[in-house]
Amino acid sequence: MTLSETTTYRAATAVQASRFMKALRRESADATPIWLMRQAGRYMPEYRSLREKYSFLQMVKTPELAVEVTMQPIRAFDLDAAIIFSDILPILDGMGLRLTFEKGEGPVLHNPIRSAGDVDVLRIPPAEETLSFTLDAIRLARAGLDSRALPLIGFSGAPFTLAAYAIEGGSSKDFKRAKTFMMSEPQAWHKLMEKLSAVVGDYLLAQAKAGANVLQVFDSWVGILSPSDYREYVLPYSQRAIEIARGAGIPIIHFGTNTGGLLELIHEAGGDVIGVDWRIDLNTAWARLGDGVAVQGNLDPVALLAPWEELKRRAGRVLDQAGGRPGHIFNLGHGILPGTPVENVKRLVDFVHEHTRK
Amino acid sequence: MTLSETTTYRAATAVQASRFMKALRRESADATPIWLMRQAGRYMPEYRSLREKYSFLQMVKTPELAVEVTMQPIRAFDLDAAIIFSDILPILDGMGLRLTFEKGEGPVLHNPIRSAGDVDVLRIPPAEETLSFTLDAIRLARAGLDSRALPLIGFSGAPFTLAAYAIEGGSSKDFKRAKTFMMSEPQAWHKLMEKLSAVVGDYLLAQAKAGANVLQVFDSWVGILSPSDYREYVLPYSQRAIEIARGAGIPIIHFGTNTGGLLELIHEAGGDVIGVDWRIDLNTAWARLGDGVAVQGNLDPVALLAPWEELKRRAGRVLDQAGGRPGHIFNLGHGILPGTPVENVKRLVDFVHEHTRK
Repeated sequence: MTLSETTTYRAATAVQASRFMKALRRESADATPIWLMRQAGRYMPEYRSLREKYSFLQMVKTPELAVEVTMQPIRAFDLDAAIIFSDILPILDGMGLRLTFEKGEGPVLHNPIRSAGDVDVLRIPPAEETLSFTLDAIRLARAGLDSRALPLIGFSGAPFTLAAYAIEGGSSKDFKRAKTFMMSEPQAWHKLMEKLSAVVGDYLLAQAKAGANVLQVFDSWVGILSPSDYREYVLPYSQRAIEIARGAGIPIIHFGTNTGGLLELIHEAGGDVIGVDWRIDLNTAWARLGDGVAVQGNLDPVALLAPWEELKRRAGRVLDQAGGRPGHIFNLGHGILPGTPVENVKRLVDFVHEHTRK
Repeated sequence: MTLSETTTYRAATAVQASRFMKALRRESADATPIWLMRQAGRYMPEYRSLREKYSFLQMVKTPELAVEVTMQPIRAFDLDAAIIFSDILPILDGMGLRLTFEKGEGPVLHNPIRSAGDVDVLRIPPAEETLSFTLDAIRLARAGLDSRALPLIGFSGAPFTLAAYAIEGGSSKDFKRAKTFMMSEPQAWHKLMEKLSAVVGDYLLAQAKAGANVLQVFDSWVGILSPSDYREYVLPYSQRAIEIARGAGIPIIHFGTNTGGLLELIHEAGGDVIGVDWRIDLNTAWARLGDGVAVQGNLDPVALLAPWEELKRRAGRVLDQAGGRPGHIFNLGHGILPGTPVENVKRLVDFVHEHTRK
């Protein structure tokens, strides 16, 4: 080994010994690890000041800026993992759906999928070709995180959540158009999901190769489906994407919201960790999932807007429900809301560590 | 008995012997009863043509118009119950929150609750004073329905869903403001919920006295809460409202969406029937609730936008999950969507009857 190889090896070993990686393997750790979805974002003044100079997509597509944003919460709080700053939708842009972010409107896909023909022309490009900015950001961030022995999370939207956006052309209250397409054009739907599972799987694998230590699959909107629909129209494709990603040999977190009716099926689709939201008690969810998986969650993000004593009571309740079992990763049930006081985030992170320290 | 009393008595007996009322009592009936949330509404041309002449609130507040809209789906389809045409929000107007419906925006409460002081000044008027238009509509509709031996459903929003609107000042994506108020101002929250439970209970009771045969409590947005929050901040008040309404001695349907994590608690709050949405399998939900209640649901309303063969397959699956047990009331998991083809509604209603006919 050269000196540089030795350093890399030591850093990799330290990352593997971190409490976050231990929890992912359901090993006992010195305290419960915590990270927060959207830990980099609008609630931080550092983020807002960078955002004044660059558009959201510029920040995602410029590796140096993406790394800077990734590191902002790491510098501010004692978090147990970094997550690469990116977005779930650029993967659709790479497939041929033109993506912009409009002020006040959020993401817009300008040529959404409305017919079987639209599915046929979707490209399946390798991630290295269309998402190199995020892969480069991961390489850069990983190097910076070595000195802290902090794991880095890569991520992708799950095939269903991406399909929902691709058909709606943006966000939606009830995803009526996406579900109607699924029910009315099953062949085109399955073809779309096949393409998405290939692209998502490849992207996750590429992030692992670039240096991500963990991968999270965001099926954020899957909770609008019935269990039968999930099994028939979604599960095989989430499973396929996760299977491809498993080739990297690193842990996978499978996350969705509103999944009280779907938990067992989401587990069946794959993942070493299942992320749950606050709509179900953590202990109930874990009992249904069984001992074979770790669980991530599940504080209501609104609790971060409450006074500290109330926030503490709620965080304590999540920890009580987890009962100190190895394999609990503390997180919110969904992303941090804009307007969240930075001070509450700091106190929450410290509280989770202090309250569970062995 | 006078002739008129005899006629009323006969009609009441016929209503009690209807398949809908039988299912509410978990008695075996000749076929599974079906009604549909928002069965009167924008998807019907008859409704839209009336709506061209009158505002939504005019239609709600004019008993003759409300009865006409109530009867439109009864004339068009072989439904097993009518539901009085009204809205859940006028009750808040009566308490002092000025309500209008703005084009494209939906309901707006112009002086929403933002402080403990706002809660203090809320009035608790009797329903006969502020909601007489709906009570009169129920009296009128009941008389018209007697010849058909059709039950009439009265309804109210549940205290939580009303509180959420009252604080947000309208609809919301995540009810962040309402939940923050609940978490940050618990005393004011409890006072608000106490007032709401009294007003809701009284309104339900008044609807029963006016001639409603069944009462449905809509806790449409309760699924944004964690089980702990439901137990602490909501359950006692839903329970109180339902207890007051039970004084009328008629069956109560307790409905919410996204309730996969809350089912047992919703049952604990009360109701002879629990309404569930499509996000959980009907058989799973019923197994968790136990044999002591009837169950209403749970087709995804989007299925009504699918081709008939697909809609039929989905309706058949709901019926299969119910397994022909007495006490299943077929319904959607939420209201009919605008744009639903009338023909699909007709076919669905007939299919449910034919498929389950004994």
